[in-house]
Amino acid sequence: MESWRLRMERALAARLPQPTAVPARLHEAMRYSALGGGKRIRPALLFATALTLGLSEDEVEAAACAIEIVHVYSLVHDDLPAMDDDDLRRGRPTCHKAYDEATALLVGDALQPLAFQWLATDPALPASPTVRLRLIDLLASAIGTFGMAGGQAIDLAAEGKRLSLEEVEDMHARKTGAVIRASVLMAAQCAPDLAPARHADLDRFADAIGLAFQIQDDLLDVIGDVATLGKATGADRERGKPTHPALIGIAASQERVRRLHAEALAALAAFGESAAPLRRLSDWLLSRQY
Amino acid sequence: MESWRLRMERALAARLPQPTAVPARLHEAMRYSALGGGKRIRPALLFATALTLGLSEDEVEAAACAIEIVHVYSLVHDDLPAMDDDDLRRGRPTCHKAYDEATALLVGDALQPLAFQWLATDPALPASPTVRLRLIDLLASAIGTFGMAGGQAIDLAAEGKRLSLEEVEDMHARKTGAVIRASVLMAAQCAPDLAPARHADLDRFADAIGLAFQIQDDLLDVIGDVATLGKATGADRERGKPTHPALIGIAASQERVRRLHAEALAALAAFGESAAPLRRLSDWLLSRQY
Repeated sequence: MESWRLRMERALAARLPQPTAVPARLHEAMRYSALGGGKRIRPALLFATALTLGLSEDEVEAAACAIEIVHVYSLVHDDLPAMDDDDLRRGRPTCHKAYDEATALLVGDALQPLAFQWLATDPALPASPTVRLRLIDLLASAIGTFGMAGGQAIDLAAEGKRLSLEEVEDMHARKTGAVIRASVLMAAQCAPDLAPARHADLDRFADAIGLAFQIQDDLLDVIGDVATLGKATGADRERGKPTHPALIGIAASQERVRRLHAEALAALAAFGESAAPLRRLSDWLLSRQY
Repeated sequence: MESWRLRMERALAARLPQPTAVPARLHEAMRYSALGGGKRIRPALLFATALTLGLSEDEVEAAACAIEIVHVYSLVHDDLPAMDDDDLRRGRPTCHKAYDEATALLVGDALQPLAFQWLATDPALPASPTVRLRLIDLLASAIGTFGMAGGQAIDLAAEGKRLSLEEVEDMHARKTGAVIRASVLMAAQCAPDLAPARHADLDRFADAIGLAFQIQDDLLDVIGDVATLGKATGADRERGKPTHPALIGIAASQERVRRLHAEALAALAAFGESAAPLRRLSDWLLSRQY
């Protein structure tokens, strides 16, 4: 994880517009939001999948940057007063607190096209034009209304409402699951001779790990430590957000994470030893305290 | 123009997510913002360029939808309270007034990836994968920090400041010029055997028409009629926005539009009679009252 974090810091710093270019303040705010923090979980999933499939990290670095940058855009917009109204992110003031609301809005708006541009043109990506288009399609689906943006809309509409567990899981599948799934499937697209059955295995793995990750995140909001997390806790309950801990309690949520973890590992069975990077990452993801 | 408007209304209505799909309210807000209004100037430029190059409107319809939808996203975000704080757009309440701020934010966020997805996958677009990637690159550049989002950042930072005419023109080249240029150049990319010299002509045409269009827009904010425009006037002066009318006066601004118009037409000379659609459109654009 640490070497991937360093790689991503370098890769994003090199690809993001420089603060020496006009408009300097917007470029600074983009770099402030994207650099110097973050667990880089989505890139880690992409790298671990790539290694599992015999690809190098170099080959998928541009795709990892694209997926991370849409994640950053979503954090910047979700933190805005009109959305979750958060002041703290990764232990620092959120973008609209460090700069201003208009700048934070533009940071998100300007990060999105960069992701697609990198997938379309980055010379470090050895993918064929057809594969590049599939990566763009995967990313666009993952962040649209049937993915992340739709999940956020359902989440906002659900505050203070009683959702069924099924509705909560549909919301999570979109809000965080879709981009986590895309992280795995984008790496899979870069291995064009992957057997359809193995592709389906990775899809099952990604679905299970995505939901488990979200439940773990919601658990940390209840039982986590502010200093370790670098952000406020208890926010979900305060807003009346429907989450697994709120719906089925802490112990049952932890059990659900364990079961999904087992499902995720089972989906990797056919890869044998080569899936060791994905297994290690899954173990880390679902035992993390931040 | 009228038949292009009708075509765009149909094309966008068919491509945008249906309000029957979850999240219904977000899909409704996207359709509210994108349908039922708008001059469709960027699609018109794309269609007129396509006709000039011997392409049919059908062949570039998906690209026209992509360019229009990023324009719509930019209007929805620019109207937000943190940006221009406008209540009226195309004679109707702006998206955040008709819905709410969070929804308006998500409408913009969800329209952006649709544009790239259409360019990557729309079956109506006969372009090769390589041409599709060039279209994605053109669009991404046009709306990023060296295009539209950067122009908006410069615009917001410039309120109440004294900019030079050169700085104002750089701001306009990004804020509106970049997407107008992309409308013309995306059509040009769809004609892969276009001579480089003709491509350069179209680029010069697009630069001149883009700036002339923006000056005309700023003139209408000073001398236009609220009912005809469907939005408030006088907003630029109220906000102390640096514009051509504010900097050089109305008569000199009108003269600048006339000169740019002549430059744009001169750039089309080598196309002969085939550029009639672009000439007619330019004449209409620069004499419009709304």
